[in-house]
Amino acid sequence: MHKVIPGSITAPKGFVAAGINCGIKQGRKDLALIYSEVLCVVAGVFTSNLVKAAPVLLTQKRIAKGMARAVIVNSGSANCCTGKRGEADALRMTELTAKELGINSNEVLVCSTGGIGKYLPMDEIADGIPRLVRKLSSKKFRDAAEAILTTDLVAKYVAVEFPVGRKKVKIGAMAKGSGMIRPNMATMLAFMTTDAVIRRSFMRKALRDAVNESFNRITVDGDMSTNDTVLILANGTAGNAEISEGKSGAKFQSALTSVCRTLARKIIEDGEGATKFVSVRVEKARSRKAAETAARAIAESPLVKTAIHGGNPNWGRIIAAIGSSGIRFSPEKVSVFINGLAVVKSGVRAKYDERKARAVMNGREIDIRVDLASGRSCEEIWTCDLSRKYVDINV
Amino acid sequence: MHKVIPGSITAPKGFVAAGINCGIKQGRKDLALIYSEVLCVVAGVFTSNLVKAAPVLLTQKRIAKGMARAVIVNSGSANCCTGKRGEADALRMTELTAKELGINSNEVLVCSTGGIGKYLPMDEIADGIPRLVRKLSSKKFRDAAEAILTTDLVAKYVAVEFPVGRKKVKIGAMAKGSGMIRPNMATMLAFMTTDAVIRRSFMRKALRDAVNESFNRITVDGDMSTNDTVLILANGTAGNAEISEGKSGAKFQSALTSVCRTLARKIIEDGEGATKFVSVRVEKARSRKAAETAARAIAESPLVKTAIHGGNPNWGRIIAAIGSSGIRFSPEKVSVFINGLAVVKSGVRAKYDERKARAVMNGREIDIRVDLASGRSCEEIWTCDLSRKYVDINV
Repeated sequence: MHKVIPGSITAPKGFVAAGINCGIKQGRKDLALIYSEVLCVVAGVFTSNLVKAAPVLLTQKRIAKGMARAVIVNSGSANCCTGKRGEADALRMTELTAKELGINSNEVLVCSTGGIGKYLPMDEIADGIPRLVRKLSSKKFRDAAEAILTTDLVAKYVAVEFPVGRKKVKIGAMAKGSGMIRPNMATMLAFMTTDAVIRRSFMRKALRDAVNESFNRITVDGDMSTNDTVLILANGTAGNAEISEGKSGAKFQSALTSVCRTLARKIIEDGEGATKFVSVRVEKARSRKAAETAARAIAESPLVKTAIHGGNPNWGRIIAAIGSSGIRFSPEKVSVFINGLAVVKSGVRAKYDERKARAVMNGREIDIRVDLASGRSCEEIWTCDLSRKYVDINV
Repeated sequence: MHKVIPGSITAPKGFVAAGINCGIKQGRKDLALIYSEVLCVVAGVFTSNLVKAAPVLLTQKRIAKGMARAVIVNSGSANCCTGKRGEADALRMTELTAKELGINSNEVLVCSTGGIGKYLPMDEIADGIPRLVRKLSSKKFRDAAEAILTTDLVAKYVAVEFPVGRKKVKIGAMAKGSGMIRPNMATMLAFMTTDAVIRRSFMRKALRDAVNESFNRITVDGDMSTNDTVLILANGTAGNAEISEGKSGAKFQSALTSVCRTLARKIIEDGEGATKFVSVRVEKARSRKAAETAARAIAESPLVKTAIHGGNPNWGRIIAAIGSSGIRFSPEKVSVFINGLAVVKSGVRAKYDERKARAVMNGREIDIRVDLASGRSCEEIWTCDLSRKYVDINV
């Protein structure tokens, strides 16, 4: 099993990072760089939004070749809906970075996050990149994690370690995301580094599975961004026997999924205006798809989310959300539990004490469990409550 | 063409109404009755939520027979998820009403609206019904319109008149709805009366078409209730030649659709926490379904709705919402107009003055028009903005 270790993307051997303010935002870091001393195999998962930002399209193309050494990231502007000029700007960001690092620009990936529809201030970025490269260090992971934030309140990172034979393998990671979060990727970026020697085809599959069990299971407001990107770079400096299917592969998968789930949870905890962490689990559905549809309908209902914010055990809104989700089930068989307390049994109000129900809603963690009694499938979605603060942030 | 006249459900000849407080709610009216002196042909449209309240199931059954004379309605409790007891309570409401009116209980329809999961206070309702019947009058339409409200701030009603041959035909209507509003019906009730002589099969179709062009085109928060019901009762006292397909049918359809659109608009204007009326029109889509999906994605996006609340011309959120809606289109061809001002042309920011864009967002009416340039279909959805007040109301 893996264990959590201090640090982030520079915990694995051979990776350095930096983060600075170059002038895209006022007074906050806005430009980050991850760099590996040696060429890495890479894999990525990208937004399913039909509208994709220029850097997403460029990085997707480069990922297809399977190798890279650096990732340049800016926050404060998404470089989306920026046409040909946006494409040229994304390309130039990789060229400027490559030149300063003395590597080929094909080996540089690029990500942007922030508001849609503005052109990048390329003069500031061009001035910033040499400064950024000079700051590269294994100690600057926090600066990098801060430089990718937008409306996030806290930097989000984690690192883990696990043995492969007699070698130790590490995975480090950082992420950003706060609003526009929902299953199938949102205004979120996540970067993972590892020193593992690993087969690329296996890593690609492992990343997809890890994302499905983590970032694709969270929702803040049901919106999905144009820039969502998850990348993993493996530089092989741990010197382990190549990881692929089998026992070492299972270990890697478990560690990577855990890293992604940790980041996904941090994103929800830092959700725009969030005061509570909410898990919605739908059990005994006819299919996993039905379970997910119902869980999502609950997790995305503004009425359910405001009730949770107010500590109001309003299970009627939960039932109404499932009923309108489009899945098939028998209303008279449904049971609902909030933090273990049965509030609905066989489709009607269970015998419970109203004060007790209000008390269980007071915690910072709300666990909604729905038993549809109509099949064998189960899915879980994580979300947060909907507060006045969410509105304040987004007006 | 029809003209708007004063009054509501008692404007058509032979209808009386009343509204009182019977004790379900504190200090506000909570029990309404509509009554026709003669038997009416009736039609209804009901919630598509799989979870249906007891009164919805009973009224659906009675509507199937096609005739009724009275509608008893309570607010303050939805009588939903109340099992066998709820079914018995709904039935008893119609029996008590029928007894007091001296008619058959099969001729009484019943609706409830309010919180889910509580039993109706039947003692209060049983005491209230005789008082309610004594108050029946053609002048009490406002009391009735008030008694069906929940979180609504204002009573919503309208009446119209149009000629059929040498006779004048009237349609009167009242509605409630404020939160949980979305296409395919929501926490909304609407009641229409008419003195027209009309073929039932035609009226049924006319109602469905009118609802599709009105209540199914509005959304406040994307939630859908378990109690939504639209009813129309026609008592034939106008003595006109029977309305069916043809010229008089077209007139009736036009008047009924107009009545429903007026009420739908009133519902949006009174949306929970609403400060702006927003129409979202998606043009040149590949299909009506695609146009509706895109319009709904925009109208239900919390990020779009908070931006509108803040007077922020953030068209990036509009583009992101369309992109994630699942429809096919070419992002590089899209244009977006806000109150006529082009903000996006061919997928990139149009040349516009930022101050002017902020100025057009300041109005109480926001008109978002999206040209997908990918087909010939068009749909329009009405919604409102998302404010702190919405959260205040629903916590």
